[in-house]
Amino acid sequence: MTSTAAGAWTREVEQYGVFEVAVRCASVADPGAPAPLTLQVSGPDGETAGVAAGFWDGGDVYRARWMPDRPGRWSFTTRSAHPELVTHGAFDCAPAPEGSHGPVAVAGRHFRHADGAPHFSFGTTCYAWVHQPAEMQEQTLRTLGEAPFNKLRMCVFPKHYRFNENEPTAHPYPTSADGGRDFRLPNPDFFQMLDRRVADLARLGIQADIILFHPYDRWGYPAMNARDRDRYLRYIVARLAAYANVWWSLANEYDIVPDWSEEDWDACFRTVQAADPHGRLRSIHNCVRWYDHGKPWVTHVSAQSSELRRVAEWRDRWNKPVVVDECCYEGNIEPLWGNLTAAEMAHRFWLGTIGGGYVGHGETYLHPSDELWWSKGGVLRGASAPRIAFLRRIVEEGPPLGYEPARWRWDMWAAARGEQEYLFTFGARQPAEYTFDPPVRRPFRVDVLDTWNMTVSPLEGLRTPPFRLELPGRPYTAVRLLAAE
Amino acid sequence: MTSTAAGAWTREVEQYGVFEVAVRCASVADPGAPAPLTLQVSGPDGETAGVAAGFWDGGDVYRARWMPDRPGRWSFTTRSAHPELVTHGAFDCAPAPEGSHGPVAVAGRHFRHADGAPHFSFGTTCYAWVHQPAEMQEQTLRTLGEAPFNKLRMCVFPKHYRFNENEPTAHPYPTSADGGRDFRLPNPDFFQMLDRRVADLARLGIQADIILFHPYDRWGYPAMNARDRDRYLRYIVARLAAYANVWWSLANEYDIVPDWSEEDWDACFRTVQAADPHGRLRSIHNCVRWYDHGKPWVTHVSAQSSELRRVAEWRDRWNKPVVVDECCYEGNIEPLWGNLTAAEMAHRFWLGTIGGGYVGHGETYLHPSDELWWSKGGVLRGASAPRIAFLRRIVEEGPPLGYEPARWRWDMWAAARGEQEYLFTFGARQPAEYTFDPPVRRPFRVDVLDTWNMTVSPLEGLRTPPFRLELPGRPYTAVRLLAAE
Repeated sequence: MTSTAAGAWTREVEQYGVFEVAVRCASVADPGAPAPLTLQVSGPDGETAGVAAGFWDGGDVYRARWMPDRPGRWSFTTRSAHPELVTHGAFDCAPAPEGSHGPVAVAGRHFRHADGAPHFSFGTTCYAWVHQPAEMQEQTLRTLGEAPFNKLRMCVFPKHYRFNENEPTAHPYPTSADGGRDFRLPNPDFFQMLDRRVADLARLGIQADIILFHPYDRWGYPAMNARDRDRYLRYIVARLAAYANVWWSLANEYDIVPDWSEEDWDACFRTVQAADPHGRLRSIHNCVRWYDHGKPWVTHVSAQSSELRRVAEWRDRWNKPVVVDECCYEGNIEPLWGNLTAAEMAHRFWLGTIGGGYVGHGETYLHPSDELWWSKGGVLRGASAPRIAFLRRIVEEGPPLGYEPARWRWDMWAAARGEQEYLFTFGARQPAEYTFDPPVRRPFRVDVLDTWNMTVSPLEGLRTPPFRLELPGRPYTAVRLLAAE
Repeated sequence: MTSTAAGAWTREVEQYGVFEVAVRCASVADPGAPAPLTLQVSGPDGETAGVAAGFWDGGDVYRARWMPDRPGRWSFTTRSAHPELVTHGAFDCAPAPEGSHGPVAVAGRHFRHADGAPHFSFGTTCYAWVHQPAEMQEQTLRTLGEAPFNKLRMCVFPKHYRFNENEPTAHPYPTSADGGRDFRLPNPDFFQMLDRRVADLARLGIQADIILFHPYDRWGYPAMNARDRDRYLRYIVARLAAYANVWWSLANEYDIVPDWSEEDWDACFRTVQAADPHGRLRSIHNCVRWYDHGKPWVTHVSAQSSELRRVAEWRDRWNKPVVVDECCYEGNIEPLWGNLTAAEMAHRFWLGTIGGGYVGHGETYLHPSDELWWSKGGVLRGASAPRIAFLRRIVEEGPPLGYEPARWRWDMWAAARGEQEYLFTFGARQPAEYTFDPPVRRPFRVDVLDTWNMTVSPLEGLRTPPFRLELPGRPYTAVRLLAAE
C-alpha cells in the first residue's frame, strides 16, 4: 500500500484491506493543510460508499485511502483544487481471507467485528514501541505473535518518562528553529513507518489502540495549539482510518496534559469523529479525573483504575463497553502501579471479565537498559501472559458476544450467560468448599479451574443447585457451571 | 481465689492479684439481685481504695473481690442488709512478681499496663472456647501458651452459628420451664469455670476480652430484658472486674442483635461503667454499622473491617486506640471472612500496625468435627501465627508506647517513631527497588525484613535520604530505617 507508485492505485484489494491511490503535485502551497485532495469511493452497487480526505506523504506525493467492506468492483474519484491531484479509476475487492473479520465496532456493552465475529478485548501496552530502533520493533512483533493479546496501546508522539529517556528514532514532527516542534509539516518517514507497524499488527490480528496525545513529553508536543491539533488529527485520520485494526484513543492520562481544558478534548473528539469516514472506535483514558464517557462521541470506556469490582457499575452508568486499559502492571519497579505479581495481574483480568468488561495488561520489570515492555516493547519477562491466555480461552468458550455480570450473592459476582452458564473466581481467597446457589434449579456440569496452573478439571456427573462443592483450598481457583443440555 | 472458704478471705495476695472474701447467708430472698453485699477496701495508707459489689456464688455463699494495686497491708469491710454478710479484716499485698504488669489502660492512642509497661495488643479469637469440654479448653490454653497472642476475644454466652452446633458444656443461666432462659439466678458452676479460665489466661499474660452479648443464639440470651441485663452486667462485673486481665467487650456484632436499640447499648455501657470500680477497658464491636466510639464510656475502638489502611484515620476521628478485632480470618471456609491466606492475614496485622493500631487474628480451617480455632479454640493449623510473632517482635523493638502513623508519601504509609525510625511494608507488591525519602536528612541504618520467611537483614553502612535501595522483588518485604546514634 505505502509502496503504491505515484499516479497509480491499488488494483486488487481484499475486503477490509486498504485501497490506496497515489498522486503527484509539486505546486501545493501548504502540503500539510487538511484534505489536499478527497477520495470518493463507490461500492459494487454503484452507490457512493463515502468520502475520505487524502494526505501529503512527502515531496510531491499525495495519497488517499479507503477500506472496502464488501467484495466486488469498486470505483473511485479524487477531487482537489489542484488538477494534478484529480484522478479516477476502479479496483477489485476480493472476499476477506480466512481469519480476517474486519474492524471492531461496539455491540451493546461488548465488541463485534464487521463480519459478526465477537471481539473479546485482551489488550497490552507498549506506549513507545514505534519510537525504538527497528530491530526492537521487530522483536516486539515477534513477542506479540506468541502472546495472547489482541489490542496494543501505542503512542504516536514519543514518550518522556521514567525508564523512557532515550530519543525517539524518528519524530512525527520536526524540530523547529527554536528547539521546539514545528507542526507545519509532518515527518513522512515517521508516518510511513507507523503505517507499516499498524499493518504488521493487523497481520497478527491485533487492534492498534492509537494514542493521539499524552502528557509525557520533553519535545513540545502537548503545546500544540488548536489549529495544529486540528491539522494533526485530520492528517493522522486521513492516513490511518482505512486500516481496519485502528482504534482512536484521544489521549493517555488526558487529565494531566498541561493547559488543556475539557472543551479542548471535546473539540479533538469532534474533529476525529468528523474526519473519519470509517467511524473507528473512539475513547479517552484518564489518570485521576474521568472524562464524561456519556458524551456521544465516546464509543467505549477506556479506564485507568484498580477497582475492577466496579466494572459492572460502570457498564450500567454509561451503557457502553468498558475496557480497563490500566489497572497497574505486572513488574517490580518502585511505583505502586508497576509492581503487581503475575498472579494479581491475571486476577485483575478475571475480575474485569466477571464484571462484563475487558482489561489491559502491562509489564514493568526493571532492565539494565530500561527495556520495559509497557513502554518500549521487546520481550515479555513475566508470568501473567500465559494466565491471561488461559482466561482468553475460557472467554472464547463462553457466550457469543461476551459475559454479562450477575450478582451471585451479596459478596460475589459471577460472569453469566443467562441462566445457562456461570463463571467466577475466588481470587486470592482459598475456600475449600462452596455452596452454589444461583437463582436457577437445573442440572449443571461443573468445571473447577486452576487459573494459576491453567487447568480445567471437569467434575463427574451433574449438580442441581443448591449444591456444595469441595474446592482445592488454594488461591486463584475459579469455577464454571454449564447447564446440561 | 475461688476456693476461698466461706467465712474466710485471702490473707496474702500479690499486687494486681485478686483479693476475695467469702461469706455465708441462707436467708437472702433474691440471691441474684445486684450487690447482696458491698466490699470497701482501704489501701496501705488507710485511705479508701474503693467499693466493689459482691455476688452470689451458689447455695448460701457470697463473695466479693478486689484487685490491690500496690503492696502493703490493706484492710476491708463488707456491708449488707444481711448481718451474716458483714465482716471485716486485713490482708497483705506483696509486690507484683516479675512479668506481672497490672491491668491495661489507655495511653493516648495506645495501651499501657498499670506499671508503665507498654501493651502492644496482638489478639486472637476463640469465641466459644469456654463452652467446649474441659479437655479442649486445656488444649486451647496449651496452644495459647505457644502462640504470639496477648488478648483473647471470648463470649460469656454460648454460640450458635455455622460450625458451632454443639451444646455448651454449661450454661451461664439455666433453662426455664418453657425452654427459654431463666435469668433470675446465674449458674455458679459456669461462672466458677469462667473465673478459672480468666485466671488461666492471666497466667499466660493474655487479656480476656470478654464479650458480654452477641447475636449468635438459639437459647434465648439476646431476649434478655432491660432489668435482667442490668442484673447480669452487675453480676459479671462483680465477679470478674478484680481480674487484672479483663476487658469488657459490650458485644460482638452489636448491630445485628435483634431488637436492641442504640439506647440499649448506651445503657449497658453505663451500667458496666458504674458497676466497675476498677475501670476496665470498654469497647463494642460492630458488624456493619459502627457504634459512635466517641461516646465517653468507650475507651477504645474495637472494629470489624478489612480496610486496614484507614486505621490512622479512625485514630484521628476518635482520638482513641484502634483495635481491628476482625479483619477476616486465615482459613478455608466458604464465607468471605474466613478464607484468607496466612500471608494476607499477617499482612493485615502489618497494615494495622503501620496505621498506629492493633489487629486481631482468627483461624477458620475446616475440620471434620468443626473444631475451628476462631470459635472453639483447640489447636492452630495455619501459618500466620509465627508471622504475627515476628511482627510482634519488631513492634516490641520499636517505640516505647507504639508506632505512630506517618504518611511517607502519597501512596505509602509508614509506622514512625518521630524522625528516628520508620517501618513499612510493601505487602503483596514486589518492587525490586525503592527510593527512600522521609522528610529528614540524617543517616539511617537499614533493615530489610522478609515478613514471610521472618528474617531481618541489616544492610551494611548508613544511608542518608534520599537514597535508593535494591529490594528482593518478592511480596511481603518490609523495611525498617533506624536513625544512627
